[in-house]
Amino acid sequence: MSNPTAAILIIGNEILSGRTQDVNVQFLAKRLAARGVVLSEVRVVPDVPKRIIDAVNELRAAYEMLFTTGGIGPTHDDITSECVAAAFGVPWEAHAETFAKMEAVMPPGQFNAARQRMATMPRGAVPIPNAISLAPGFTIGNVHVMAGVPRIMQSMYDALEPSLPHGTPIAMQAVYAMGVMEGAIAAGLSAIQDRFANVDLGSYPFRREGKGGVAIVAKGTDTKLLDEAIAEASQLLAAQGHEPVQGEPD
Amino acid sequence: MSNPTAAILIIGNEILSGRTQDVNVQFLAKRLAARGVVLSEVRVVPDVPKRIIDAVNELRAAYEMLFTTGGIGPTHDDITSECVAAAFGVPWEAHAETFAKMEAVMPPGQFNAARQRMATMPRGAVPIPNAISLAPGFTIGNVHVMAGVPRIMQSMYDALEPSLPHGTPIAMQAVYAMGVMEGAIAAGLSAIQDRFANVDLGSYPFRREGKGGVAIVAKGTDTKLLDEAIAEASQLLAAQGHEPVQGEPD
Repeated sequence: MSNPTAAILIIGNEILSGRTQDVNVQFLAKRLAARGVVLSEVRVVPDVPKRIIDAVNELRAAYEMLFTTGGIGPTHDDITSECVAAAFGVPWEAHAETFAKMEAVMPPGQFNAARQRMATMPRGAVPIPNAISLAPGFTIGNVHVMAGVPRIMQSMYDALEPSLPHGTPIAMQAVYAMGVMEGAIAAGLSAIQDRFANVDLGSYPFRREGKGGVAIVAKGTDTKLLDEAIAEASQLLAAQGHEPVQGEPD
Repeated sequence: MSNPTAAILIIGNEILSGRTQDVNVQFLAKRLAARGVVLSEVRVVPDVPKRIIDAVNELRAAYEMLFTTGGIGPTHDDITSECVAAAFGVPWEAHAETFAKMEAVMPPGQFNAARQRMATMPRGAVPIPNAISLAPGFTIGNVHVMAGVPRIMQSMYDALEPSLPHGTPIAMQAVYAMGVMEGAIAAGLSAIQDRFANVDLGSYPFRREGKGGVAIVAKGTDTKLLDEAIAEASQLLAAQGHEPVQGEPD
């Protein structure tokens, strides 16, 4: 499909250590799909300059958009902003408007060097505001640099979204049945996939209240084709003697 | 540090679409840290052969261990196993012992082509058993291929763990305080980090019941140094007039 592509880069020692459960990928994945953007890769790298710089440069070249999350606060471990400047080979400098805005609201003496870092961006960056804090994210080229804290990241994405390239929304439809074994329907499902080249058909076993089932998920930009593929998947499940239920299992 | 390094590769259209919230990274991250293995990178790629093959080859070369999750079931979208064979340049063929075990327990006619795929592995692979299903994961070289379903993946990791390289366990200690702003403690925290080169100090803002706080997390292999760094961080928080509480916020 000709929808634009995107990647997410998570700058996150706290994800790699297991301290924090990431939830930003799922939020962005759903929002990007609804906008018709194909999320093609996610990477998590540690708070190490070379790792961040290399990943930014690889991913911004490979995809039409790159979203980063994490590492834009005021502390010593927040190094995303200067790494993005280095990746683009531009100076990292005070963003005058952001600097003035933040200085204006801080009590005298409180706009210290650490907080000034949050008003410092790669030259040419455009701030991404958020509803929670005056400290913005920013866009430079096709790279959108956002906070790691989910509610701040979500607010930044809300602000950013209208300006992003978009495509035909990527829809999902699903049907499931309890008591099905994937191995029993695999051949039939493969035949359906072969008939629907423009539908992306996935099979996902699940358990509910100690019993097993399988969910069949159809993804694509043509909802009529999704309807048809899911109708065929429903027949496949029914033919095995299992009652198909539209939608995803709880 | 000289601890061994690892990467995780998630083969997962369902993660990239936002359908499924990954929880395997956090499980593996915690277990690897406890074993003294440094998780250095996570990637999520779609169910596309070239993407899987390229990622397997990049990551197995860059790190001492690679764990993959997802794509080893019986359906058409389960292509991890043959892609790993292609990455290693070896034939993908029936694993005689696994084939015989699975065939023995299936009712006549039920060990169909789809299920036989789960007994098919890269030549030279060693099965990774699990407590839930007869269909194993496998190890080839430094690549450990596991299921995507969390409880099956976890059982496979349990079976695999004793054979993995290991290092000094990576411990974490934390202290937090409500009412702290990161910007107010950033300079002091940076000074502590400078004094403890072998401790990895992170600062993480959080909210609880509508109020903000900051958690300081120290990570490293020398628990005495972690004690000392966290003691200094506690003093830093206390000096700001906030009561430090040992451990992570709920």
